[in-house]
Amino acid sequence: MTERRPDPHVASGNPVAPATDLPDARSSFDAMWSAIEPLGRDRASGGYRRFAWTREDHDLREWFAGECSRRGLDLVEDRAGNQWAWWGDPDAVRRDGTSGGLAIGSHLDSVPDGGAFDGPLGVVSALAAVDALRDRGLTPAVPLAVVSFGDEEGARFGIACAGSRILTGALPADRALALRDVDGLTMSNALTAAGRDPRLVGRDDETLQRIRSFVELHVEQGRVLADRDPATSAVAVGSDIWPHGRWRIEIPGTANHAGTTRLDDRHDAMLGYAETVLAAREIAAAGGCVATMGKVRVEPNAVNAIPSHVTGWLDVRGADEAAVRAGVANLQSFAAGHGATMTEESWTGKTRFSPELVQRLADTLGPSTAVLGTGAGHDAGILSAHGIPSAMLFVRNPTGVSHSPQEQAEPADCHAGVQALARVVADLCGAS
Amino acid sequence: MTERRPDPHVASGNPVAPATDLPDARSSFDAMWSAIEPLGRDRASGGYRRFAWTREDHDLREWFAGECSRRGLDLVEDRAGNQWAWWGDPDAVRRDGTSGGLAIGSHLDSVPDGGAFDGPLGVVSALAAVDALRDRGLTPAVPLAVVSFGDEEGARFGIACAGSRILTGALPADRALALRDVDGLTMSNALTAAGRDPRLVGRDDETLQRIRSFVELHVEQGRVLADRDPATSAVAVGSDIWPHGRWRIEIPGTANHAGTTRLDDRHDAMLGYAETVLAAREIAAAGGCVATMGKVRVEPNAVNAIPSHVTGWLDVRGADEAAVRAGVANLQSFAAGHGATMTEESWTGKTRFSPELVQRLADTLGPSTAVLGTGAGHDAGILSAHGIPSAMLFVRNPTGVSHSPQEQAEPADCHAGVQALARVVADLCGAS
Repeated sequence: MTERRPDPHVASGNPVAPATDLPDARSSFDAMWSAIEPLGRDRASGGYRRFAWTREDHDLREWFAGECSRRGLDLVEDRAGNQWAWWGDPDAVRRDGTSGGLAIGSHLDSVPDGGAFDGPLGVVSALAAVDALRDRGLTPAVPLAVVSFGDEEGARFGIACAGSRILTGALPADRALALRDVDGLTMSNALTAAGRDPRLVGRDDETLQRIRSFVELHVEQGRVLADRDPATSAVAVGSDIWPHGRWRIEIPGTANHAGTTRLDDRHDAMLGYAETVLAAREIAAAGGCVATMGKVRVEPNAVNAIPSHVTGWLDVRGADEAAVRAGVANLQSFAAGHGATMTEESWTGKTRFSPELVQRLADTLGPSTAVLGTGAGHDAGILSAHGIPSAMLFVRNPTGVSHSPQEQAEPADCHAGVQALARVVADLCGAS
Repeated sequence: MTERRPDPHVASGNPVAPATDLPDARSSFDAMWSAIEPLGRDRASGGYRRFAWTREDHDLREWFAGECSRRGLDLVEDRAGNQWAWWGDPDAVRRDGTSGGLAIGSHLDSVPDGGAFDGPLGVVSALAAVDALRDRGLTPAVPLAVVSFGDEEGARFGIACAGSRILTGALPADRALALRDVDGLTMSNALTAAGRDPRLVGRDDETLQRIRSFVELHVEQGRVLADRDPATSAVAVGSDIWPHGRWRIEIPGTANHAGTTRLDDRHDAMLGYAETVLAAREIAAAGGCVATMGKVRVEPNAVNAIPSHVTGWLDVRGADEAAVRAGVANLQSFAAGHGATMTEESWTGKTRFSPELVQRLADTLGPSTAVLGTGAGHDAGILSAHGIPSAMLFVRNPTGVSHSPQEQAEPADCHAGVQALARVVADLCGAS
């Protein structure tokens, strides 16, 4: 290992690695993809159910450990349950006093009935990128980690990016361990059942110190690349994560009998809910945002009872923070006019990835490469907010659909993603 | 016992009993009301949770048995779990070859967070009416039963009037026993746990043969009596149950990511649901019916997922059967236009109570007595559909609200109900 480029994402004056195509790692990618394809797949829906600290999660972790071992990478699980496989010693101190290196990867867990690509594409591509570098006889000048983050989707315990949030301290250990799944089991129970010691869980400064920068490859979750000229690149650079938030809307009503109460005498919470759903859509369309009301709880939720209370959840995101806040304020007024209250459950302003790193990725991949913001949260956003220079690569998704079995990426585009990632690594780590 | 009037509701040519007021049974009514008031009451909501074959149901059954025993009534539980307490021998054959007698009563179970009156008012009033007759030294010439029907609300196993439906065979035993509660327990499991033998459950011809007619007193579940001149009678006669039905509406969508999917690319099942809720209300108002969408199920019901499927349930009722069917057909067209399907889960045409019996009750209670149809289902409707002459008495409800803790009846009106019921019994049973 040489220490040619200790902090590559800011050392932008250094010459980049040659932009010639690296050898494709197709067979390696395809073999790994076939190996994990059956793990956690639901036969009925065709979608995946890979939830944190379950049997399926265990199998995927074992598979990842095996692939790292085959490649001679040094595997470490951090205090948040994320798996890091290092090529080179991240603790070795370079002449300039720095240590650590570049991390690439994503996650292996899924939403309920999720697609095959959201997460695993980034992990498998990172391993294949290692193979691509080796096929060309290249060795990174600074350490390289392939990372598989745990519990990114939050499908089991309700908090997205739990692995990276615990790692950075954004999610305190005591709060995380007390989270419960639908069966009432805490994360602490789940960790114990999975053979981990909950007492060791928490922010992990030793791991954080090793990560000089992070690049996450991910399937695109929209149609920007799909709608471009098919001849243009199948890979884009991610520049930022849209501002986004969640609100809980409480709509009051009065319980009453569905058969004997005249329409004029009713105070039906479901009517207020229906109007709110349609208003949210209209306001979002007018403001250039996206709004979703995907979850609802009705009391008493009986066919023959006028709902006495409806709780709806609103998710709003958009490229423009002011537009998102204005849309939410509009809906808040609308809701108040119907006697409803709206409570902010979470809010995250725009997360800008490192502009230098984004520019460097775009330069490496060439002038036709699209640079996109995204409406989805990612571990790259959590690390970025923590101050670790991060960026993303997106691979074309012909359906534009995500969090669904219809999520897709063509084999040729996946291979192009591996190649792009390998070129980025060669550039950032100064492989030679 | 004499056999002066074996089939009183059709022998309308016979002289009615004197319409002088019977002695009030206030203290008896009040004492019983106080005794059951705490049973199954939820402290938080103030409403009742008295569900079939639970601990609370058991306590209410025990209380009923005790009250019947104190009065020397002969208690029998039928093959459907309904409790019948006879004054006089219902199997004694009269000179004209007939047997059986009049039943009065209602049910003691509740909807979730239901009011205190829906059901219990009829049972307590029936027991108090027995006391009122006895206070006057009257004895019915034909046997009289006080009945407490089981599982009228269907809160636990989902089928309303389960006790009377099993009794009459309208609900076959094998179907009833296989019904499941939210915990997955079958009615068969619940009966076994309550010390009953599920093998004995089924249509009970022996019991049916004993019931020559049935009068159910019930709190009014609307505002007709409350909106009348307060000086008019607090008690009305029920003439019929409105035609009513339930439909399941399946609204398709496409699962997708709430953050990354453009509004124009969405197929959001929640929007179709919201439009259907508002259309149902509009169509019902135009057609003079009532429509309720009180229950909904969303898939996957996650804040950050566009709903891939929403199932909504529709309840429609109205005085005019043609108007109800036309409204449902309108909504069916609306739903079809949105790619949704609407399936009839149940339909019951108008249930007319025995016109002779209704007339006789109205004559007994005097010319100012209102005669009302109702939008609610009742055991009286099930027995009537089975061919047992039945009718109802409604007691004024100042809030007009039902299936809610706000359900109400003033003490004076409750006492007037007892008095009215006692007069009806004296008339129909020829008490002397």
